[in-house]
Amino acid sequence: MQKLTVIKVGGKIVEDSESLSQLLEDFSKIEGKKLLVHGGGRSATTIAEKLGVKTEMVNGRRITNAEMLDVAMMVYGGLINKNIVAKCQAFGLNAIGLTGADLNIIKAVKRPVKDVDYGYAGDVVSVQAEQLSLLLKHNAVPVVAPLTHNGEGLILNTNADTMAAEISKALASEFVCSLVYCFEKPGVLSDPEDDSSVISRLVYKDFKSYQEDGTINAGMIPKLDNGFDAIRSGVDEVVITNSKALAKLNDLGTRLVLD
Amino acid sequence: MQKLTVIKVGGKIVEDSESLSQLLEDFSKIEGKKLLVHGGGRSATTIAEKLGVKTEMVNGRRITNAEMLDVAMMVYGGLINKNIVAKCQAFGLNAIGLTGADLNIIKAVKRPVKDVDYGYAGDVVSVQAEQLSLLLKHNAVPVVAPLTHNGEGLILNTNADTMAAEISKALASEFVCSLVYCFEKPGVLSDPEDDSSVISRLVYKDFKSYQEDGTINAGMIPKLDNGFDAIRSGVDEVVITNSKALAKLNDLGTRLVLD
Repeated sequence: MQKLTVIKVGGKIVEDSESLSQLLEDFSKIEGKKLLVHGGGRSATTIAEKLGVKTEMVNGRRITNAEMLDVAMMVYGGLINKNIVAKCQAFGLNAIGLTGADLNIIKAVKRPVKDVDYGYAGDVVSVQAEQLSLLLKHNAVPVVAPLTHNGEGLILNTNADTMAAEISKALASEFVCSLVYCFEKPGVLSDPEDDSSVISRLVYKDFKSYQEDGTINAGMIPKLDNGFDAIRSGVDEVVITNSKALAKLNDLGTRLVLD
Repeated sequence: MQKLTVIKVGGKIVEDSESLSQLLEDFSKIEGKKLLVHGGGRSATTIAEKLGVKTEMVNGRRITNAEMLDVAMMVYGGLINKNIVAKCQAFGLNAIGLTGADLNIIKAVKRPVKDVDYGYAGDVVSVQAEQLSLLLKHNAVPVVAPLTHNGEGLILNTNADTMAAEISKALASEFVCSLVYCFEKPGVLSDPEDDSSVISRLVYKDFKSYQEDGTINAGMIPKLDNGFDAIRSGVDEVVITNSKALAKLNDLGTRLVLD
């Protein structure tokens, strides 16, 4: 089987022109098939503010109301995605920008309202591996924005970490698949204050202990849940690292291990 | 050869939810391969205003400064394009949203500065028929936004009429290609005040006479220039009509004829 590397990068990296160029240069040098999933970033908030769209938050999470969905479509699907695609092309990568609606690759359901109505937030239902696989076989490099659709004409705002995991799981039967989450830190840290304390192999039971004692918390928990879920579903390797480490992926970051 | 219908629709039609749904329903019923090119529309101006981006005009034409390029990427490449793609999927069309940068399908050059600096406006240099053709053969329905790229990382704002003509020309050797320009009127009119005065066959020399005596003027001239250029370059049929006529394309509108 051919190797496929799925890279997830956050919005912050892709919004800064210099860090984006460095990221894409490193990305272009990764051997084998590759796919990039990008996050949203702060420009959505900035643009929403300028447009007078109120950001509604519940428990620290943003609510995607109709106006915010328009902003997400504009910023994630348009501005950020097309900027990355054009820059990839300049690095010789035959990039193609996609949301879940394009070629129907990722279908989602509007998150059911329980205690909180998250608005136009989508929970992934299915990934069409066939279409992505066809693009990859033709040497296209998919660049995926954090948007899905419900199959009934509606775009939905979707978590990029989850999308990267779901894409990797769907392609794991056809490719030897590595999923790499890039974030600000060099890996999962045993001491949050010490960047040299990277846990190079994170075993699932240790993740649970770290979670209990608070060493691992906040946004890292869903990221690792997604990662372990991917490993369990046949993804060969899940790495958490800094985007600066993309050029030397084999040596750095935290690798997830089931037991 | 298989039949391909390339439809160009203006921004106004795609911005109104009701007219867009009707358009896409009719579009979904067109037999054979099909491709949609959409224009920009007024929402770009509205959003630019809200963002405090000043619209610069010279001789009635908009200048694409850096801020306006961002707005074009957001509105054309994101909001409008992804809305159309999601709605196409709901009508059972396997739509894929594209700009010229995606799969490198349309390369352009930043318009050279002569008397006027149009900013980030792109003049089409080349269309890669191969990638579009491959998508069409896999039953994908390309939905193309009026944006191209220069191959060096820059997105450029590009006239949608020209893009539709260039795409049709590039695909004319592989498909029996019809190019349909949809606009507000039922066709080219011999009396601009009378919607029933549709010229059903417009011969090139008559177009030139109508242009001289002012019957055909303003925005219709570049549209027809593009259309006759397409016919000369092997496109089988060019029709100018109203989007409401898409359901009965064989009967209505103006067909261009060289002589």
